[in-house]
Amino acid sequence: MSGVIVTGIGPGDAGGMTGHCLDALRRATVLCGYDAYIDLVRPLFPDTPVIATGMTREVERCRLALEAAAAGETVAVVCSGDAGVYGMAGLVLQLAESYPDVEVDIVPGVSAALAGAAALGAPLMHDFAVVSLSDLLTPWEVIARRVDGAAAAGFVLCLYNPASRKRHDHLAKACDIALRRRAPATVCGWVRNVGREGMDHGLLTLAELRDWRADMFVTVFIGSEETRVIRGRMVTPRGYTGLAE
Amino acid sequence: MSGVIVTGIGPGDAGGMTGHCLDALRRATVLCGYDAYIDLVRPLFPDTPVIATGMTREVERCRLALEAAAAGETVAVVCSGDAGVYGMAGLVLQLAESYPDVEVDIVPGVSAALAGAAALGAPLMHDFAVVSLSDLLTPWEVIARRVDGAAAAGFVLCLYNPASRKRHDHLAKACDIALRRRAPATVCGWVRNVGREGMDHGLLTLAELRDWRADMFVTVFIGSEETRVIRGRMVTPRGYTGLAE
Repeated sequence: MSGVIVTGIGPGDAGGMTGHCLDALRRATVLCGYDAYIDLVRPLFPDTPVIATGMTREVERCRLALEAAAAGETVAVVCSGDAGVYGMAGLVLQLAESYPDVEVDIVPGVSAALAGAAALGAPLMHDFAVVSLSDLLTPWEVIARRVDGAAAAGFVLCLYNPASRKRHDHLAKACDIALRRRAPATVCGWVRNVGREGMDHGLLTLAELRDWRADMFVTVFIGSEETRVIRGRMVTPRGYTGLAE
Repeated sequence: MSGVIVTGIGPGDAGGMTGHCLDALRRATVLCGYDAYIDLVRPLFPDTPVIATGMTREVERCRLALEAAAAGETVAVVCSGDAGVYGMAGLVLQLAESYPDVEVDIVPGVSAALAGAAALGAPLMHDFAVVSLSDLLTPWEVIARRVDGAAAAGFVLCLYNPASRKRHDHLAKACDIALRRRAPATVCGWVRNVGREGMDHGLLTLAELRDWRADMFVTVFIGSEETRVIRGRMVTPRGYTGLAE
């Protein structure tokens, strides 16, 4: 069956993929994605033809995938993490309006929020909000309003894209907003290259995070008032009773 | 190596598990979890001894897992979805303070937010907030404040535990809160038994969702102002340019 399967490969290592993701990649007659993500799956499927394009070429790439599917190919659009969280699932569905005969399937994966949380401990055990700090596609005012709203309502925050090559101050600005709602000692954490070579992570306070230098390979977590450090891990407890017996 | 591995098995079918999850289950000398989740993995590992307990026995269950690990076993604590999203990761880490010699590892998985989103389309393409409507461990006032804050700040909402056997009105109350911030025609969706037998899903408006009868097997999505129905799927577009060429 031809069509497009938009699949999240998880953090990047083969063990982080689901069986459904591996099936999709195996069935694909063409792999399509951003170069860096294709590089992660290429070793597993070295003989499958590839449509790869650079960053910020998302529209072109997804349209090429749909064109190939319309011509009879089974195209796996490869996303890092989850296909539906800042991935390509939405864009492929939007563009697929022009390709009514092409079937589109979405295969979910382990997003950086979940993989990063597991590396740090269990920061997302209670209600949480996910916000991208990239203003490439969203005005900063909208981002700032969301960070403020989530911090005010008591959510743990998970921040994607805290910095890019051109943009170094968004995390500091987000922390300044959070500091109006949360104590400087609030437990925070960061994870770099989760599930990939060079993985690293650490805990720090919200005040320290404000002056910490993030890069584009990092996911950041801002704890709630309940978040604590337990055995060196970042944990947001739920209110289970019977813990102090 | 003995210790506890808290692992998320994803929605429930074998194909929804990651390789790391399967490795953990394979290595385990004891499986531990809520009966219904153990039943999902039992067919794959029929010979591994099991510590299973009913619902709301979480503290007892996690303590038994730590005890077994302290006695030399390798215990996989099985969670549905992700171990760190309303799963057992946090509770195991909290209880592990009393077991300093027991190693605890967390293996992330595909949470119902991500699996449900993929079934519906791509509702979580932009910033989103995850809220559990269960007031077993959280006062309703806190839940209501979070639903309101997330709706006011423009997040797509993903609601876990919208109903239980005893509790049928929480979803209606959450929708009433959202309706103060969002139009009645806002696109919403629900997914039942995602990745399991009897999976079903549907789209409806926020006004319709208010009077819809949820059950404990459902995950619910409330769209943002941007969320639309595209090819029968629920999609929250990001602001890519060049779509109308």
